[in-house]
Formats: sequence, C-alpha cells, structure tokens
Amino acid sequence: MGLPGDTNLELLHYIGSTDMHWVGNSNELNAAYAADGYSRIKGCPGVILTTMGVGELSAINGIAGSFAENVKIIHVVTATGRAAQEKRVMIHHTLGDSPDHRIYAKISSPVRVAHCYLDDENTAVAGIDRVIRECYIHSRPVYIYVPVDMAHKPVAASALDKPLLLTRPSETTAEQAAVDAVLGAIHSSKNPVVLVDSLILQLGLKPLVRSFLNNLKFPTFCPFMGKSVIEERKPYFRGTYNGKFSYPGVQKAVEEDSDLVIHIGPLPTDMNTGGFSAKIDPKKLILLQETKVIFKGELFVGVYLESFLTRLSNSLDISRVPKTSSLALPALPPLPSNSEAKDPFITQSHLWPRIGKFFRAHDIIFSDGGTCHFGLQDAEFPDITYIMQNHWASIGYALPATFGGAIAKRDLTNSKAEGWNGVKGGGDGRVIFITGEGAMQLTVQEVGSMIREQLDVIIIIINNGGYSIERCVVHPDAAYHDIATWNHKHMLDFFGAEDGAARTYQVRTKVELEAVLTRPELEDPQGVHVLEIFTDKMDFPWRLKAFGEAYREMKGT
Amino acid sequence: MGLPGDTNLELLHYIGSTDMHWVGNSNELNAAYAADGYSRIKGCPGVILTTMGVGELSAINGIAGSFAENVKIIHVVTATGRAAQEKRVMIHHTLGDSPDHRIYAKISSPVRVAHCYLDDENTAVAGIDRVIRECYIHSRPVYIYVPVDMAHKPVAASALDKPLLLTRPSETTAEQAAVDAVLGAIHSSKNPVVLVDSLILQLGLKPLVRSFLNNLKFPTFCPFMGKSVIEERKPYFRGTYNGKFSYPGVQKAVEEDSDLVIHIGPLPTDMNTGGFSAKIDPKKLILLQETKVIFKGELFVGVYLESFLTRLSNSLDISRVPKTSSLALPALPPLPSNSEAKDPFITQSHLWPRIGKFFRAHDIIFSDGGTCHFGLQDAEFPDITYIMQNHWASIGYALPATFGGAIAKRDLTNSKAEGWNGVKGGGDGRVIFITGEGAMQLTVQEVGSMIREQLDVIIIIINNGGYSIERCVVHPDAAYHDIATWNHKHMLDFFGAEDGAARTYQVRTKVELEAVLTRPELEDPQGVHVLEIFTDKMDFPWRLKAFGEAYREMKGT
Repeated sequence: MGLPGDTNLELLHYIGSTDMHWVGNSNELNAAYAADGYSRIKGCPGVILTTMGVGELSAINGIAGSFAENVKIIHVVTATGRAAQEKRVMIHHTLGDSPDHRIYAKISSPVRVAHCYLDDENTAVAGIDRVIRECYIHSRPVYIYVPVDMAHKPVAASALDKPLLLTRPSETTAEQAAVDAVLGAIHSSKNPVVLVDSLILQLGLKPLVRSFLNNLKFPTFCPFMGKSVIEERKPYFRGTYNGKFSYPGVQKAVEEDSDLVIHIGPLPTDMNTGGFSAKIDPKKLILLQETKVIFKGELFVGVYLESFLTRLSNSLDISRVPKTSSLALPALPPLPSNSEAKDPFITQSHLWPRIGKFFRAHDIIFSDGGTCHFGLQDAEFPDITYIMQNHWASIGYALPATFGGAIAKRDLTNSKAEGWNGVKGGGDGRVIFITGEGAMQLTVQEVGSMIREQLDVIIIIINNGGYSIERCVVHPDAAYHDIATWNHKHMLDFFGAEDGAARTYQVRTKVELEAVLTRPELEDPQGVHVLEIFTDKMDFPWRLKAFGEAYREMKGT
Repeated sequence: MGLPGDTNLELLHYIGSTDMHWVGNSNELNAAYAADGYSRIKGCPGVILTTMGVGELSAINGIAGSFAENVKIIHVVTATGRAAQEKRVMIHHTLGDSPDHRIYAKISSPVRVAHCYLDDENTAVAGIDRVIRECYIHSRPVYIYVPVDMAHKPVAASALDKPLLLTRPSETTAEQAAVDAVLGAIHSSKNPVVLVDSLILQLGLKPLVRSFLNNLKFPTFCPFMGKSVIEERKPYFRGTYNGKFSYPGVQKAVEEDSDLVIHIGPLPTDMNTGGFSAKIDPKKLILLQETKVIFKGELFVGVYLESFLTRLSNSLDISRVPKTSSLALPALPPLPSNSEAKDPFITQSHLWPRIGKFFRAHDIIFSDGGTCHFGLQDAEFPDITYIMQNHWASIGYALPATFGGAIAKRDLTNSKAEGWNGVKGGGDGRVIFITGEGAMQLTVQEVGSMIREQLDVIIIIINNGGYSIERCVVHPDAAYHDIATWNHKHMLDFFGAEDGAARTYQVRTKVELEAVLTRPELEDPQGVHVLEIFTDKMDFPWRLKAFGEAYREMKGT
C-alpha cells in the first residue's frame, strides 16, 4: 500500500520485477489503514511505502492505531540520499534551516517496536530480518528507512535460505505450571464462565479458541471487542459482557454468580469494560494474556498465549470438565417493543438484529467504531470475520481497512491459502463495510480505489445526520455535530463506477430495507454496491446511550 | 477549524457564546491545511481544535507544513481529565498498557515553537498568552493542551485589558548600520537587481516591499516561491529566477551581469533555487532575512525584516538611486511555437499563460504544488494573492487550504477589514483553486465543506491522467503513477450541491477552454464551480521537465 513520491520511485520500480503487488492508495493515512485491514485478514504484515516527512507523517495516526491494536505493519520510508542527509540539505519536505532529515523517524518512534536505517549494504539484510521478526513477535508496527541512493545496492540473497524464526518459545516449566493450575480450576469449578476477548483476534487465535471452547462448552461471553470470536448460534454463547452496559442478568451472572472466570486475550480498555464498570473478583479470575497468565492473582511469566492455549487444549480431559451449571443465564437479545415493531421507519433497535441476519458464514465485515459497532453488539453473528478498531477508535478507519481487507481476500483466493483467524478466500463470503455517514467522510476517497481495483464490496451507510457518537455524549442538538450533507446516490458515479446510481439503494422504511437486503445483487455482489439506510438523528443504539452517560460521569476521573 | 471529538465537546460548546466561529472539517489533516490557508489570507493565526491521539496525529503533517513555511497556527488539543492522566487509565485513543496520555504532545514537539499544558487555572492565562506571543513572533505553530476537566474552570479576564506584545523590536544600532550599508550599496550600484522571495509573503510584507520597489524600480525577479509578490505588469518585473531553470538570459543577468543582488526574504530550498543551481557571488549579495541581514558576507544580527524594511524605505533618497542599467534583460515569456499554436488540444505551454489572463486583480489563487505551480510560473500575474506550499510540498494541501482561505475572505468581507499581504475582502476578487486531478484525490472531501458553507469558489482541475510530477522524475510509463479515474462531472452533486452537473465544465480543446473561461458564471461565481481541463499525460510544463532531470542528477548528493 502507499503512494508514489519522489524518493520512493526508485524502490517502487523494483516491485515490478518481484511477485509483490503494488496497490496505490488515495492518501497516506488511508494507506496505513488499508495495510492494517490487509494484515488483519491475511495475517502477514501489511506493508506501507511512503516518502519521508509528508508521507510518513500523514500515515502516523494509522500506524499508531496498528500499534494500539497489535496489528503487524512494516512501514517503509524512503528518504533523501545519504550525502544530502549528511549535508543537511534544505530540500523539500524538511523543517527549518540545516534540517535533520531523520527527525520524522524520531517523531514516530513511540508507535513502533523496532526500526532500522538501511545505511550500509553490509548490514541491511540483517536489519530488515531483525525488524520483520520483531514485527511478528510483538504483533506491532516496525519501520524501515531507506535513503534513496541505497535502493540500487545489491545484497546477498543467501539469508533467504534460512527461514526467519517468527515466534517466541514459551518457557516450558512456567507454561506447564500455568496449564496445571488452570486445569485444576476448570475441574473443580461449579459455575464457570469464559470471556473471549480482543487479543484472540489480534493474535490470530480464533480457530484455536473455538476448538477449545467446543470441548469446554462453558457459558461464554464476549467483551465488546471479542465480538465474532464465537459463532453465536453455539448454545454456550451468551452474548456481550460489557460491565453495566450488558443485557439484564449478564453482569450478575459473570461477576456475582460464577465461581470461575477464564478471560482469554483481555484488553481492559474503557470501551471493552463498559467504561470500567466490569469488576470481576481477582480471586476467581484467570487472565490469559499475550505473554503471561495471571491465575487468581498469581503470575506466570514467559507464557505466550498461542503456545499456552495449544498445551491447555491438548491437556484437557473432557471427562473431568463440569457439564452442568446453576448459573441463571439471561435470554439472548430481547425483541423490540411493540411500538417499535409497528413503526414503519427503521429504528436502531430494528436495524441491527436485521443486519445480523443479513450476514452469512464466511462474510468479512468491517465496521466503523462509532454507532455501528455499538449497534452490532445486538446482531447475532454467524461464522464471520468481524473487524473494527474500537480501542484506538479513529473515526474513518474502517473504509480504507475494508479496501485492504478486500485486497487480502483476493490474494487469499488467488493463492488458495487460508488467512488469519481461519478466514477463507473465494467461496461465498462477501466483503461488507458498515459505517455511519459521518465516519465515511474522513476517508471516502478509498471508494475510488475499490472501484479501480474492481473489488466486490457492499457498503452499508447508516445515515443519521451527523456524528451520533459525539451527539450522544453531550449537547445532542449542537450544530457542531452536524456535517456536510452529501448525496450518496452520486458517490459511485463520482468515483468512476460505470453504473453507479443503479448500484445504489436508499431506504427509509422497514419494508424498503427488506426489499433491498433480499436482492440477488447483494447475495453475490459484483463490484461495489451501496445501501444507504436513513435513521432518525436522535435515535441511538441503547448501549451507545448508556455509554454516553457513563462517559459524562467519568470524564474527569 | 477541526472536528468534534469526545474530549473537545465541552470546550467546543463555549465557542457558541463567543464571537468565534466554529467551522467543522471532514478530517483533521484537512482541518490543519484549512487553518493554514486561513492564516495565510487573514494574517492572524489559524486555530485548529482536535482530540488527543487520533485527532492530533491525523493533523500533524499539516502542522509540520505550517512550521516549514512559517504559518501561524494554534493547535488546541483536548485530552482526558487530569485524574485519568495521573492514573494512566487505558482509555480509547491511548497506546499500550499504563499509557502516557501526553505521549502525542511529545511526538509533535518538533513541529511547533511553543506549547502549554493547561493543568492549573492559576497559570493557564499566562500560558495561553505566552504561546500566542511565540506564535506571532516566530510565525510558526504552537500547541495548547487542555485536559477535559479544565474546560469549565473560570479564570480572570483582567489579562485581556493589556494588549499582547506580538512583535520583536529590532536592535536600533544594528538596524541603522545595516540600513546605512544597504543604502550605500544601492547608491553606488550600476547594474543592481532585486529578488523578491517567499518570506515576504509568509511574514505579510508584500505591501511594504511593493511600495519600496515602486520607488527603487530595480529590475526585479522572483524565485519560485516569490511569485505574486510583484504585480507583474510593472515594467521592472522581469520574471522568475530559478537558477538554471529560468528563461534564457535570466540566470546570466542575475548571476553574472549584475553588480548587486538584493535578495528579500530568501528561502534557499531546492525548489526555490532550481535544484540548488542558483549561485550568486556572496561579494555582491545582500540577504534580507527574517532576523538578520547578511551584507556581502557581513552579518547584522537582531535585525528583523519588517522593521528593517520600514527604516530602509523611509531612508531611501530617490535622487541618489541609479536610474539606468546596462543589464541585458531577457524578453518575458516567449510565445508557444507555431506547431503548438496550431494544435487544437490544450497543451501545457498554451494553458498556463491563458490561465494567467483569466486572473484579475484581487483574486485569491490557491495552487497545488505539483504541475500547476511549475506551470503557473509562465502565467503573468495581475495584483493577486497566490498561495502554494512549495517547500513542505505536501500533495493535497491546496484544496483544504482554499476552503480555509475562502472562509477567511468571508470573515474579511464581514468585518470590512484588510487581511495579510494587503488582501481585500468583498470586492471583485474571486477564490480560485487550481489542482492536478491526482493531488485533489488526497483531500477531496473538503469540497463538501465548501458547499456546506455556501462558499463561492472556482475549482480548476488539470486532468493529465495521474501523478505527473512523479511521472516526470522517473519511469514515466510506470503503472504506479496512474490513479483511480474519477468522473468529476458528478463531484459537486455527490458533495451535496443542488445543481452540480450544471456547474461543471469539461474541456479538451483550446476553443472549448476559451468558451468556458469567458462565461459570466466564472466572472462572478455563486457557489462552487468546476472547470476540468484535460491535457496529455506526457505533456509537462518545461520547468517541471527540467526539474525532473535535475532531481535525477542530485538525488544521491
């Protein structure tokens, strides 16, 4: 991903003679988001190529999001030649007199785990290998800085003969001790529950966790960002647990009535804990983290999640796993009230369960982190891949990420490979992007890239007249929540589609929505299709409303 | 300018009860560019309000551009409450475990001259005053960090009684000595020339320099970024001086045949010096810089440009200024060749002089830094305001900057005030934005903001099938120069204009171009109009072609 720029043209040109594939983006922030989406679908690092200064700084917010949410990115920055750097030449894209051409690399250091400067052909190969390894091990961004005159230096290919070691081995003794402790707790539990959380997805462990839980069958809840880990028609899946913003009964079952909580891949952020209202007694809590296990307060370090879960799964003796539970478990999502059911217009409480029914197995769903992600908690997910960026929470992320994800799916289809978290190429899965109309404005130009690359994508726009997630926090009527009113009927035509208006459906009522969602073009989309759903400006998903209240309470604390 | 975000809503709400005006943008990078454009037209700082993390990092490339090009920006960043920061709460928009909520403020420190953290109501006022003063004095960005719980703290208004001191006084003795030296050189020169450069515009000194030169009348050239300082129909204006990329005769006249070169407001970047090919003997060179004068190698420090030029102008004795010169001065831009004149299609050599004739006094022109800025060097400028960002050279800057500039013009009209560099509100001046179709893709959503704010803007798109400025540097046929092909006929309709297609004109021939440029709607535009001009993909302005060659030669040096 990336954009051509004067210093990267030389390097870019070599891509043509490799089996790598260059995908241009419309701007560098979008490129960073797209590389992130690519990595989340395919599992390998997303690679972004930018020029120094203007390019890399435009991308930095996207890279920061990948850092915050454990996504593997290799950011290649091409710079002026070494001599120009040495002389601190006042070339374009530099700051002030006698400029430091590497100042930007320093600026971005907090949003990566490793970097290398390719200043010497004798050390370049080792530098590149080192950062790629760090990228995989920490599942976070790395940075490679290439002076333009280095692009033509030949290096030895011999290092390619030896595969890179891309994982850290768990410490066997600690890992076994942790497995024994957890197994003991499982065997002796009476009312256990499991929480499946964000890091499972970010570390690509969904198939492993699913297989483990298919054996374990303990009542399982997902925190906000663990949505989609479990195929939700499984009888042991019991919905979203998000502290006090859970369905009635959920918080009590998890926090009070259980005697054991196994929390896999926790990400204890405000969004993911109901504004920190999730409180589980540490004495009954097992946290399975990225690099350690915290067992009822006892720490096992050097224990890595994938290796640990594999050993735990292999050690599980089904005959000793408790089969019954006296937990009073809540019913799954209640139906909308009668008055809402009679309303001909599309309400939030009608919308999201209906969207859930539109999804089918193998779909890849990208959702913006605003209203949509709150609403989709009330949709029952089949076996889908669901991507949102709810911790870094950068509005506009999801559109370019969808573009990257659709490219990744195409690559998987072409190579007949399996992707991250068991995602499949080809087959009958669709790529669907769900967004508020406000969020889409930030990064809309990547729709043009989707059309240029002839990708098949369904874009669902929830048009509720502004930034609802902000409107919901304070002063809902204030004019600053309003945004420019675009006419999405013309979007695809503008971005270069042949018959854009004909592929764009705008609906206001439940009947209209039903008619569109069952169209054959959306069953098997060819090219980009747009479904715009109008909802009332003051109608929020119930969780968002509750979250807005909590945010007002906690903002100073 | 800016976007609402959870932590800034509280502060934003107070704007409603002031005479400040909130203008929402489509994303934060665009907001930064727009604030920059606003400042360049109005002269006061542009103010941008973003949320911490996602918002401020998205804006950082725009702020860096303002730093590189001496534009006054106040970036207000709203953050989590002080208690949450103290506890390093893992709230959304933070990085990693136990996150530092101020890490972003550290990231952006190289692109500002001052900052303050509003942590204490007793020091907040002094902090704000200090950074505003630094913003003016250095003509560069500053940063104000507001924890959300501080937004409601009352502070004393008494500091407002005393106007801020916003300039630095020159050191009188040094200034007088420098004036004496320069006057002596003027009086004794035989073949003097003047170069009017970038910092004149960035420091708002155009009227002062014009008045000085109207008295001096020495042959005057502009480096690339000094374009528009002089009304070009003045007989003493002799065109662009850009080292070896000047019209035949210009480099010789300036570098060899002159005996004195007065260079006002120099910015010695690659773009501005013909790729560093401009070489003037220091023994005949006077550099009038922002904070010092370098007189034939002798340094006068603590001499500030505005104060110095004022004293110099006042001290000038016209009777002692040489009136004649034996310099062989080149003719102004040559006409296109006969074969080009007969070509019915629009060539680069035809286009730019014609666009120059379309401009009229008091127009405000924003140009993208790519092909357009190279081409416009061959347009004769009437008394216009011309803005481009040619040193930071961030592609996509000019569209949101135009939006900011149009808002500034509206403010000037409403307040009947004069802006920066003598720019007028109201009157018959138009706001015109000129861009390549490639550059426009990076920031296109701000067209929606123009329509929402009902601004009158002419958008001229030069559609030459990709990133020409990159194409011109290496491998012109490479696919990575190609971009998504948009259909601009639908752009205004998409972004919410009532009758967008009817306001959009697409031309391919000289005859069609002529017909559109003389339309009454473009004489006095109401709302946004689009003129798309198609040119050949391999036809570059001659200066761009020469620059591409030079870039290839110097890239490793």
